[in-house]
Amino acid sequence: MIKTRITEMFGVETPICMGGMTGVGYAPLVAAAADAGALAFLTAHMFTTAEALEQEIAKVRSLTDKPFGINLTILPSFNPIPYDEYRRVICETGIKIVETAGRNPVDHLPDFKANGVKVIHKCTSARHSVSAAKLGVDVISIDGFECAGHPGEDDVTLMVLLPATVDALAAIGDIPVIASGGMADGRSLMAALMLGAEGVNMGTRFLATQECQIHENVKKAIVANTERDTLLINRTLRNTARVARNAVAEEVVRIQQDTTKTIEDVRELVAGVRGRENVLAGGDVDGGIWTAGQSQGLIHDIPTCKELVRNIMKQAEDLARIRVPSLLA
Amino acid sequence: MIKTRITEMFGVETPICMGGMTGVGYAPLVAAAADAGALAFLTAHMFTTAEALEQEIAKVRSLTDKPFGINLTILPSFNPIPYDEYRRVICETGIKIVETAGRNPVDHLPDFKANGVKVIHKCTSARHSVSAAKLGVDVISIDGFECAGHPGEDDVTLMVLLPATVDALAAIGDIPVIASGGMADGRSLMAALMLGAEGVNMGTRFLATQECQIHENVKKAIVANTERDTLLINRTLRNTARVARNAVAEEVVRIQQDTTKTIEDVRELVAGVRGRENVLAGGDVDGGIWTAGQSQGLIHDIPTCKELVRNIMKQAEDLARIRVPSLLA
Repeated sequence: MIKTRITEMFGVETPICMGGMTGVGYAPLVAAAADAGALAFLTAHMFTTAEALEQEIAKVRSLTDKPFGINLTILPSFNPIPYDEYRRVICETGIKIVETAGRNPVDHLPDFKANGVKVIHKCTSARHSVSAAKLGVDVISIDGFECAGHPGEDDVTLMVLLPATVDALAAIGDIPVIASGGMADGRSLMAALMLGAEGVNMGTRFLATQECQIHENVKKAIVANTERDTLLINRTLRNTARVARNAVAEEVVRIQQDTTKTIEDVRELVAGVRGRENVLAGGDVDGGIWTAGQSQGLIHDIPTCKELVRNIMKQAEDLARIRVPSLLA
Repeated sequence: MIKTRITEMFGVETPICMGGMTGVGYAPLVAAAADAGALAFLTAHMFTTAEALEQEIAKVRSLTDKPFGINLTILPSFNPIPYDEYRRVICETGIKIVETAGRNPVDHLPDFKANGVKVIHKCTSARHSVSAAKLGVDVISIDGFECAGHPGEDDVTLMVLLPATVDALAAIGDIPVIASGGMADGRSLMAALMLGAEGVNMGTRFLATQECQIHENVKKAIVANTERDTLLINRTLRNTARVARNAVAEEVVRIQQDTTKTIEDVRELVAGVRGRENVLAGGDVDGGIWTAGQSQGLIHDIPTCKELVRNIMKQAEDLARIRVPSLLA
């Protein structure tokens, strides 16, 4: 057992989180991760209505009695996303843990505070972490350059960004930090704890589990891929995303780097390329863009969530109980 | 005291290395770092003749009786660099530790082996680490994307690259690994040890020490800079280098990203820009290109080497003795 302020604050058995994952974070995976002792999050914006979210929350509860949370990724969108309705459902159904990302969650904090909901805010820089902490979020989840999805535009790696963020936050209060990006095993967990984190967040690692409802081909691709098999797209739009490397992603990068084209041309060309979907459900891993982090290089199996969490904790505890004392001998 | 295979193998007091640094790694700094308990390296190619290198080795020995090594960075160069002569001096003067970088050191290994010289080879990828290990180097120093100088073209961060390299090497033998890039304090050291390293390498951190013979303005700039204050230049030449962010570096990036220009035009324009030197000696930190890593964000003081090494080890030992047991409580 490894206890930290995160395990204490949220009543979970381990300091491992499975953050919100678009297209992936449905009830079966969330319940399996929660049941294994991780702090797992349902991703709200995958459900177009508050009722659908409420039903998914009920589904998780039918599968586990362990705590879990809701991810609220606040994005600009053409189709208005019913954030206020999501928030109402969260508060009314007695959810006590929310992970926010994208824009800062200032509009939602008063209601969450009033209902005893703790807020973990995801950031990609030390300065935004400080801003969010000043607004009153309870925990910062800091995302390094190696992460899947949106690493921001600063390109600072977790090895530096994590302790820099811990230091910046220490100057204004007492906010626990969760390390995100590149986390895959017990070594990552212990490294993050040494750098000042109180927990870790894993995304790509939970994709390659038995209970994750994506096509087997995607899980096998993650196992086969190395740490070099990711790419950054949308860099020129200043909305950088780290995705699995394949011919489609390479084509998108090529189009986006072509400075002879206008932004509108690029948007149109990329929209055409990205039209080829069907990766997660259809298993055509070379047929479209899909999200993965550099942690792919450390993922070599497709365990159940229970096996995964047990393996991570065993490795971390062996480091703490055997490796660390041997360094001091 | 923290003991690892690196401290045992090289007879040094701490697992901290100060790798070769062009324009910086002269006798006074190397002797001060060695005297403080670090494994420090004189940079051979700063000396145009073998005789000058031999004199600098003698100078270090007049200042300390602790072990130190020679950095042999094997670069393509218009002016032939006397590597064979350097090697002769290393062997004849009884130096027992060499850090190689750039091309792999295969041509030099037979002589080094015959003279009992251990070779630490710097790599920026797991696959090149495996190749070097198969050639017979004794230790791999693995450089993450966050490092100062040349991170390679893969952009894999140390958090993933280090354990991936440790795993790749474990499959072929028993080669200790040194972690390089983003290392600045006792937290970095403990994190690296948890990820499977046996030591850490610090460059930027040793620039901001009392004994480093660069202009005070550069040291102050490192302290003032944050983790965001670096840039990658020479990306389009596939010879990427991480340098301190300033107007000159930004101009170089702008020129290099201009796809309407030929490679020759770019080389000429950049040569013009980079002509503004006098940073390290003259202190004009905005007047030219100079090397720094993301670890700048963790550097807040300009201690002596002895204070620096003592502070790092104190922080690491406190983590090992206090923080780790508290996690298990």
